[in-house]
Amino acid sequence: MPDQPVRPDPVQPADAEALALAQSLMTLGHAALAWTDPDTGTPGISRISFARDPEAGLLTLVSGLAPHFRALRDRPDCALMLGEVGAKGDPLTHPRLMIRARAAFVAPGDPARPAIRARWLDRSPKATVYIDLPDFAFVRLTPVSALLNGGFARAHHIDPADL
Amino acid sequence: MPDQPVRPDPVQPADAEALALAQSLMTLGHAALAWTDPDTGTPGISRISFARDPEAGLLTLVSGLAPHFRALRDRPDCALMLGEVGAKGDPLTHPRLMIRARAAFVAPGDPARPAIRARWLDRSPKATVYIDLPDFAFVRLTPVSALLNGGFARAHHIDPADL
Repeated sequence: MPDQPVRPDPVQPADAEALALAQSLMTLGHAALAWTDPDTGTPGISRISFARDPEAGLLTLVSGLAPHFRALRDRPDCALMLGEVGAKGDPLTHPRLMIRARAAFVAPGDPARPAIRARWLDRSPKATVYIDLPDFAFVRLTPVSALLNGGFARAHHIDPADL
Repeated sequence: MPDQPVRPDPVQPADAEALALAQSLMTLGHAALAWTDPDTGTPGISRISFARDPEAGLLTLVSGLAPHFRALRDRPDCALMLGEVGAKGDPLTHPRLMIRARAAFVAPGDPARPAIRARWLDRSPKATVYIDLPDFAFVRLTPVSALLNGGFARAHHIDPADL
């Protein structure tokens, strides 16, 4: 078979506009999370609450009843997508940020937890109903790589350090 | 270690209301897709266009430039999430449908393709710009299992035959 022609990487480095868009998507408060089912090795998906904590970085708060609780504990590699589809136009033209990450549970006795909890409640006062239930846990999501897709032919690599 | 107490399954069978909600979520036109990176075995996530074709079932149309194109070809197990978060309230109270599926590409010469293409364009006339590009392909997403989450403590199993 002949070699395939070399195509230029369709994904561009981030510019200031792309970085600003990525940062704004991180304020959404929720994300789609892709994880691996530890029993079957196949993909699962969930909606998660999400925040960028100024000290602890990317975070979610997970119920022990959620299927991704055990998945993230046993198979910490995961991927998030942030971005909403607006009412108009092709859904693929609306911007979204995809982040590959590794999950790490915040232990109940972690000295950072009280401040993480207080800041979470500042942003999401309604979480007071469940935040202290014994099977809920904060999970740090340390970014490994990120891709911003701003619409057709508008894809940018984002440095995880910029998230 | 002592055995954990047996808890009742928090997920209920579907009733008529749950089925109607699941069906309505399937008309959204887009979804989040979880897939497995064939190089690393770790999860990836993408936004996809989505339709329930009356003959071919659950479908997406994928660009050869999208990272999930090769992933779905090499690792066909995947998972979709359908559902938007509204402007108000906790994102976890807004309904969403999670579907575990297996992907199968529709070959360019598949006798079903012309009708699939025509119905796709009926629903999404703007797709005419890219639907015939040589690296685009339709992919069937055959459901294996499904879970509807209508909000806290409102989870239902959905029979894949009802999708």
